[in-house]
Amino acid sequence: MRKKIISARKFIKPSFSYLVEKKRDGGEFSDEEIRFIVDSILDEEMPKFQQAAFAMAVYFQGMSAQETATFAEEMMLSGEVIDLTKITRPKIDKYSTGGVGDKTTLVLAPLAAACGVVMPTMNGVDEEHVISNLDKLSSIPGFNPVLDLKGFHSQLKKVGCTFIQQDPEIAPVDTILYQMRQETGTIPSLPLITGSVLSRKLAEGAEGLVIDVKWGNGSFIKDVEQAKQLARSITRVGRSMKRRCVALVTDMNQPLGDTVGTALEIKEAIQLLKGEGPEDLQELVLKLGMEIVRLAGVAGSTLSAKQTVQRHLKDGSALQKFKDMIEAQGGDSSVIDDPDKFPLAKHVRKLPAPKRGYVHTINAGLIAEGVAKLAKKKNGTFDPAVGVSEIKKVGTQVKQGEPLMMIHYNDEAKMEEALEYLKTAYRLAPKRPNPPELIVERVA
Amino acid sequence: MRKKIISARKFIKPSFSYLVEKKRDGGEFSDEEIRFIVDSILDEEMPKFQQAAFAMAVYFQGMSAQETATFAEEMMLSGEVIDLTKITRPKIDKYSTGGVGDKTTLVLAPLAAACGVVMPTMNGVDEEHVISNLDKLSSIPGFNPVLDLKGFHSQLKKVGCTFIQQDPEIAPVDTILYQMRQETGTIPSLPLITGSVLSRKLAEGAEGLVIDVKWGNGSFIKDVEQAKQLARSITRVGRSMKRRCVALVTDMNQPLGDTVGTALEIKEAIQLLKGEGPEDLQELVLKLGMEIVRLAGVAGSTLSAKQTVQRHLKDGSALQKFKDMIEAQGGDSSVIDDPDKFPLAKHVRKLPAPKRGYVHTINAGLIAEGVAKLAKKKNGTFDPAVGVSEIKKVGTQVKQGEPLMMIHYNDEAKMEEALEYLKTAYRLAPKRPNPPELIVERVA
Repeated sequence: MRKKIISARKFIKPSFSYLVEKKRDGGEFSDEEIRFIVDSILDEEMPKFQQAAFAMAVYFQGMSAQETATFAEEMMLSGEVIDLTKITRPKIDKYSTGGVGDKTTLVLAPLAAACGVVMPTMNGVDEEHVISNLDKLSSIPGFNPVLDLKGFHSQLKKVGCTFIQQDPEIAPVDTILYQMRQETGTIPSLPLITGSVLSRKLAEGAEGLVIDVKWGNGSFIKDVEQAKQLARSITRVGRSMKRRCVALVTDMNQPLGDTVGTALEIKEAIQLLKGEGPEDLQELVLKLGMEIVRLAGVAGSTLSAKQTVQRHLKDGSALQKFKDMIEAQGGDSSVIDDPDKFPLAKHVRKLPAPKRGYVHTINAGLIAEGVAKLAKKKNGTFDPAVGVSEIKKVGTQVKQGEPLMMIHYNDEAKMEEALEYLKTAYRLAPKRPNPPELIVERVA
Repeated sequence: MRKKIISARKFIKPSFSYLVEKKRDGGEFSDEEIRFIVDSILDEEMPKFQQAAFAMAVYFQGMSAQETATFAEEMMLSGEVIDLTKITRPKIDKYSTGGVGDKTTLVLAPLAAACGVVMPTMNGVDEEHVISNLDKLSSIPGFNPVLDLKGFHSQLKKVGCTFIQQDPEIAPVDTILYQMRQETGTIPSLPLITGSVLSRKLAEGAEGLVIDVKWGNGSFIKDVEQAKQLARSITRVGRSMKRRCVALVTDMNQPLGDTVGTALEIKEAIQLLKGEGPEDLQELVLKLGMEIVRLAGVAGSTLSAKQTVQRHLKDGSALQKFKDMIEAQGGDSSVIDDPDKFPLAKHVRKLPAPKRGYVHTINAGLIAEGVAKLAKKKNGTFDPAVGVSEIKKVGTQVKQGEPLMMIHYNDEAKMEEALEYLKTAYRLAPKRPNPPELIVERVA
């Protein structure tokens, strides 16, 4: 499985504590040293506590572009690297650092497929932000999120897109490290994120990658400069790994669109696939879609990219691809034409505005936590029916008592718990604020 | 066993990853949080990999004096805290960060005892610098380095000093953390060292502590400013724990004395106990001894401290205490009067000076490594007979071919291996260098 790069000159294995000390002191690892670390994690030779010390040292001392590229490459090579060369269409993947109410990948994958671009997406560990795309799709009866690599390949060939759990054969060292990082405060390290994303995404067989780096109170990146740095880091390292990469730095200081939940979000995604739906999401789908078709070479100019994307939304072909994908994965696609078939919550109530004014800020993170309280079952799955809708966005004027959002719920106690988060998420002010800029920067 | 401090107000247990992130971001732990960390390590609830991330975060972000004091106190309370109040004499302990050729503790413990000061010394993990004091004493036939706490107490009462392995009941959390730190590059953290030293030393029942912080190429502290900082950190935190503390910052840029080895060092210690031996060691024994008797209140002034120390060396009472201690621990003290009884190496050869000149620098660390190569047996113990003697110190003029030191060895192959280190340790220069200052700073 593991494709080793054979090194001609002799490499004397260093001790793990030497390597930790080297990074602690700001040293730069050689390619051999990084390969040795990745191999040792794969072979279970490097103890987890030394991995943790290594990760924390990297958090403080960083890694150079060269180190990060080698790290990404070696983690990619720690498992299966999917060969999609037999599929002749262009293959572009999309990665988002994750956001609250973000349905863009659900829309972009079938949209790209409709435009003739294959999108070999697997849902990795870090893309599970409270409610993942797969959680959302599981509200569709019969939908199966697991495919083996053969099934993955054949669905990509036939349909052009997939929504599946990341295969355990993909970048297994990243999976090991990611779990450890989640418990050791070492998630927010730019080189570690870069290595993680690229190792997984490039193992999925894409020739290019469109990245959506979100910053704000609903992202794990709270600082716009950090988001820009991550965008630059991923695109630079991606290019050094010979892949085309474009990143957009986008706003996550309020939920995307009007809904947060499971079935509620799928319904919104269906609107978007028809070229309808909330403005912010329409714009983000358009901009990311344009990057995908340009990177794929399907469209040469900005204008033609825009036309290509808009045409495939309006003519129903993107929505048809979404249905095809659902059917290919065993789901009942009739819900797409008849969204009333989605499970409905027993109760809907408003979150009333406590006073008149303008929505000044929304803490998207608190909204996500509130919805999680509402939806999470004891067994860890999510109630597909519940969530929030008709979210009043930043800059909207409200009267006292007017709904800031509608809360869909099945359980009174969970609703009360959720309410604490949802209430706290809103700040009203007498003056109209400047709404946050949706697309902050493009990095290519 | 564990003496918990009961907190009146409620403390909600944080997650370990929250604590790691707090320190990563430069936060200051509350007393409760530090207590929780120490308790969780003792109860094996905090996984080792999160301990490692915590330690690396402390390495980069430090701890305040308050945090460090609480950390030391809680680690001390994680095990047995020895009550020596029934011994009415003053109780002063000595701690050294460790150095090559350092025999001072071997001399100071019986010297202090002769002066009426009890020295409740246990040899902790971090005092094992290649060849520990206990390794050296094991060259005395019959010597037993293990005493239980009852035996420790009664020997202190009777003799006034001990040389034993640290009891496993002493600061067990420090033992756990120390082992982890050795493998994760987190030894050289001032607050972690401070917490480690004070938790162990103060659990041994001393009322005061004299600390020898060594800096240089034979110490793990390579930078004199760092050594000064550590001296200040230990004394400040020690005082906040209501113990008298004095630290000397001393030179470790060449071996101390003329010998490095096992029996060879014991023989040198015997000379020192007679008020003889190499000048540097005589001075260091005098200065540290003076600090001990002054801290104990046995001597009021510098002059009287000096006289007290010198008298007990000259009148044979310090040497007698050394014999008493050896006998109390089952050893054959007749070797003290007849040092020829110590095992002798089969061969002695010189390390010749490759050219004429002055000894400009000696890398004490390389000398220690060379002697370890010479002495270390496959089973991990040390050949008591081997080592180096007649070490030419920095500033000494040598002719070409004149011995830089004498090498005592039993095994030709080991000698050849050792020679590489010993040779490399010396740098000769045409001009006489300024010899390094033995005592750099006193911190009280």
